[in-house]
Amino acid sequence: MNYNTLFSEIASEVETTVSPGKIADYIPELCKVNPNKFGVHLTNLNQEHFEFGDANEKFSIQSISKVLALVLAYKMEGENLWNRVGVEPSETPFNSFVQLENNNGIPRNPLINSGALVISDVLISHLKNPKKEFLAFVKSLSNNKSINYSARIAESEKSTSFRNAALINLMKSFGNIKNDVNEVMDFYFYLCSIEMTCKELSETFLFLANYGVNIFTNERVLSTSKAKRVNAIMQLCGFYDEAGDFSFKVGLPGKSGVGGGIVAIYPNNYSIVVWSPELNEKGNSKKGLKFLELFTTETETSIF
Amino acid sequence: MNYNTLFSEIASEVETTVSPGKIADYIPELCKVNPNKFGVHLTNLNQEHFEFGDANEKFSIQSISKVLALVLAYKMEGENLWNRVGVEPSETPFNSFVQLENNNGIPRNPLINSGALVISDVLISHLKNPKKEFLAFVKSLSNNKSINYSARIAESEKSTSFRNAALINLMKSFGNIKNDVNEVMDFYFYLCSIEMTCKELSETFLFLANYGVNIFTNERVLSTSKAKRVNAIMQLCGFYDEAGDFSFKVGLPGKSGVGGGIVAIYPNNYSIVVWSPELNEKGNSKKGLKFLELFTTETETSIF
Amino acid sequence: MNYNTLFSEIASEVETTVSPGKIADYIPELCKVNPNKFGVHLTNLNQEHFEFGDANEKFSIQSISKVLALVLAYKMEGENLWNRVGVEPSETPFNSFVQLENNNGIPRNPLINSGALVISDVLISHLKNPKKEFLAFVKSLSNNKSINYSARIAESEKSTSFRNAALINLMKSFGNIKNDVNEVMDFYFYLCSIEMTCKELSETFLFLANYGVNIFTNERVLSTSKAKRVNAIMQLCGFYDEAGDFSFKVGLPGKSGVGGGIVAIYPNNYSIVVWSPELNEKGNSKKGLKFLELFTTETETSIF
Amino acid sequence: MNYNTLFSEIASEVETTVSPGKIADYIPELCKVNPNKFGVHLTNLNQEHFEFGDANEKFSIQSISKVLALVLAYKMEGENLWNRVGVEPSETPFNSFVQLENNNGIPRNPLINSGALVISDVLISHLKNPKKEFLAFVKSLSNNKSINYSARIAESEKSTSFRNAALINLMKSFGNIKNDVNEVMDFYFYLCSIEMTCKELSETFLFLANYGVNIFTNERVLSTSKAKRVNAIMQLCGFYDEAGDFSFKVGLPGKSGVGGGIVAIYPNNYSIVVWSPELNEKGNSKKGLKFLELFTTETETSIF
Repeated sequence: MNYNTLFSEIASEVETTVSPGKIADYIPELCKVNPNKFGVHLTNLNQEHFEFGDANEKFSIQSISKVLALVLAYKMEGENLWNRVGVEPSETPFNSFVQLENNNGIPRNPLINSGALVISDVLISHLKNPKKEFLAFVKSLSNNKSINYSARIAESEKSTSFRNAALINLMKSFGNIKNDVNEVMDFYFYLCSIEMTCKELSETFLFLANYGVNIFTNERVLSTSKAKRVNAIMQLCGFYDEAGDFSFKVGLPGKSGVGGGIVAIYPNNYSIVVWSPELNEKGNSKKGLKFLELFTTETETSIF
Repeated sequence: MNYNTLFSEIASEVETTVSPGKIADYIPELCKVNPNKFGVHLTNLNQEHFEFGDANEKFSIQSISKVLALVLAYKMEGENLWNRVGVEPSETPFNSFVQLENNNGIPRNPLINSGALVISDVLISHLKNPKKEFLAFVKSLSNNKSINYSARIAESEKSTSFRNAALINLMKSFGNIKNDVNEVMDFYFYLCSIEMTCKELSETFLFLANYGVNIFTNERVLSTSKAKRVNAIMQLCGFYDEAGDFSFKVGLPGKSGVGGGIVAIYPNNYSIVVWSPELNEKGNSKKGLKFLELFTTETETSIF
Repeated sequence: MNYNTLFSEIASEVETTVSPGKIADYIPELCKVNPNKFGVHLTNLNQEHFEFGDANEKFSIQSISKVLALVLAYKMEGENLWNRVGVEPSETPFNSFVQLENNNGIPRNPLINSGALVISDVLISHLKNPKKEFLAFVKSLSNNKSINYSARIAESEKSTSFRNAALINLMKSFGNIKNDVNEVMDFYFYLCSIEMTCKELSETFLFLANYGVNIFTNERVLSTSKAKRVNAIMQLCGFYDEAGDFSFKVGLPGKSGVGGGIVAIYPNNYSIVVWSPELNEKGNSKKGLKFLELFTTETETSIF
Repeated sequence: MNYNTLFSEIASEVETTVSPGKIADYIPELCKVNPNKFGVHLTNLNQEHFEFGDANEKFSIQSISKVLALVLAYKMEGENLWNRVGVEPSETPFNSFVQLENNNGIPRNPLINSGALVISDVLISHLKNPKKEFLAFVKSLSNNKSINYSARIAESEKSTSFRNAALINLMKSFGNIKNDVNEVMDFYFYLCSIEMTCKELSETFLFLANYGVNIFTNERVLSTSKAKRVNAIMQLCGFYDEAGDFSFKVGLPGKSGVGGGIVAIYPNNYSIVVWSPELNEKGNSKKGLKFLELFTTETETSIF
């Protein structure tokens, strides 16, 4: 099936029905993006590609990186990882501090900020040159050597990082951060600063639709069971305080970032990425959410 | 494929590896159950049946009823239902009161107690004779006229209902309960007192594996889209504070009850019910969870 | 010293400087009060009386009654009372449910709603005819037989009591309410419905300025130590979320009610009552607070 | 009245009735103190001195310093200070993060850690050489040039400061910290490291019993009104989660520190300091609390 026409039709409908959102404004550098950008790219297991709009323009993938960091940490640490971080959905960012206090500094899951900071800490413990080795891992997943961090974005995040500093220090007080807090935060901001196009990002995540095997290299990234578990975590925890709504309306595991990107996985089928920088009040791309809702409804693709 | 042998093997493994749990002791009548009971029943879309152990003994389905109440309320009220209750997972029962206060008395989802009380309130507003009509609905789903409430269990729950009374009164103070609080609580306790066997329960839930169509009568219970959405809600909210763990290990939408039952749905395939009364500290059947984890791992059935 | 002139001057200043507040509107009957009423009455240990304005008009003392109920319960139960309720200030009404959950249903102090419900429960356990005997106690304190409940107000409160019903049921679930919840709530609403004039109320509370001895009858109501402790509780817990502000600006132990009354005690000196029905957003009389701040500043009377 | 004999008698009673507590162990250097130390010193407005035990041995005053920092900040900033920090008691340290989130980073009062960090920030904004000038202020209050910081204690606290780092970064994220977080924390740890004897500390606080005037130099430190307000804040907020209990049993404004010191003020009379390093679970000196309870009961000195 060729989705290019359908993409164009849904994009039109989204364009006319979705009211404007707000670009992430807490990171100075992210404000500079053109809010009208819109791109979508789908890669399936036959390595067919479908796309629309600004699908080949780089954007900041932000929190979507947390999934990639999780995959590498899970690969290295195995099931011991779950002694350091949970797999349960969280209610609101607002609850984070309470939850960490109630639970001895163990974050509820690896896709909220506190959890991703723990994952970063785990990676630092395992890697000799964390930034370099993590980037090499992402390049291998995407089979694309051009992927890189944006030092500009990473440094811009550091300037407004007090809330993350509060979270990591609280976890450190419970002993759940092993390395220096500034080193962990620096690595974390670099992770979040990776830039990709919709096409590159959908290729990078394709192994999660392929039960853990990188289709481009035939290398196994994760065991089948672990790949499914990563999908399960995305399903329950991938959209901040809207995980339920996304499951309800889109019906696929996925992850969003405040750069306006969303990736979703249809297991055994495809990986799709939408990008539109205007966010709703929960921090998820407004047009991206609507596009995926209409697309999965129209094509009747859902895991449920 | 014939699962009877596999059931027997997994049951043996569960029996030898799972340490004892605790029977629900806050409801006097539930304490009387033999803790060693164990049953499992799977019904697939070919109407084949597989089972093991005490699969034909009645037990109290308790909170599993909340899904059936949700289905009937959703059918009658449509998408307006979501003005009264959310679709997001909740952290802990402990958070319930805070969450209700923060959100004007709107519960996070229909499968926690506060949410199920709102659903009960919605049904009372729609039905002339709520207990009778709800029971008729359940009988039609299961194609089985012998299903009934246990007045004994319902009355037993009333005697220890102070916490539910606290929740419903708090919601009433926000205007999110329309009927008399005692009438709603009475109906709610009857809902939870329904008794079924593993076989009956798996038949009752089969329409959710069949995209909303009752396979016994060919009647459509819910639209495809609504049936998937109910599955999505079970996936994110079906296991109290263990929804993530269940998704992670079992990988299917499901719902548990403190009577020791668990139902799980493999869309387009089957509905399975396990029953073992001993619970873990989160209130979910210990052996039931382990059985389903081993079964879906062995058969590689998971939505992810 | 004759305060009548000073009262008149301060009342003028308050009248011109304090912006309008809001009459308590959650109790239908309380809304009927004329918002412009203003009265003040001071009784000192020489039994001199000073007053201004509507000091001889009855108003609903509401939560001020909680102090009288505490006194009677403390008298009967002694220091054992503190096994059922604490003596620590509370942050916000909003925190009540969380706090009860964290502390096994033990309220933080006897002057918040949950605490006063426990005090009511204690009194019911001790008294054969609670309403009659409590009223007799209040009459004896004030040396005034004309004091009475307002059944009209009590019944009006019942119609909007869902939040209190939530609190009491939550405490009942922890076993910290011994009697029937409806009986306790009924008694509690009668307590709060007592009506007095400023003069009557200042006379009623005078024993707390007199180290526990009723100056009219020479009877000891509480030991010196217990009377001081009741003052200490008022100081820390008497003004909902404004106890600090009241201590800071007025510097005396006191208690407010949503009827617009405030009583304050200057130990070894006087008891003063101000009444003005318009409340600030914390539920305390706006003009009453300002009047007392100016009066204690002008007269340099403060316990600090 | 000569208190030396009474001190000795009460000290004996305390010694035999109070069970052992625990020395503060989160600061490595504090652990080195001899747990059996016990001292008390009272200075009255006639400049008479009474004491018992180790009253002339230096100890770490810790959080008692927060009052002195508050006094200097209040003196410099005036009532504007209350835009940055509240005057309301707090429930539990556990609530701190929630409370800061609910209230835009404004701490409930200046005597909890978050509040004292804001006060430190205010002082840094006003002072050219904060450490030097604050110490000079304390020396002037006590009329004693030998008072000093313990760099050893201050540095020891830094090594375990992650929780304070979490609080200050959270406040910084709301804009309620104006200076560099590390600079503020460094200053804060020095404040808390001041060492004094019981005698020196009771002399330092005597101006708060003297309506704001330093009795040794006749200089006014604070206006009468401001001095009373500082006492009011100590009354409501001076003992972490035991402020109510202290008011209830001791009946004086006061402040404790985890070094085992407690200061209490009897306005227009005296300032008393007790020191005993063994703490209860709330972090207050066990013997110190009991000593003051017995002393104020015996002498019938209480503000209530």
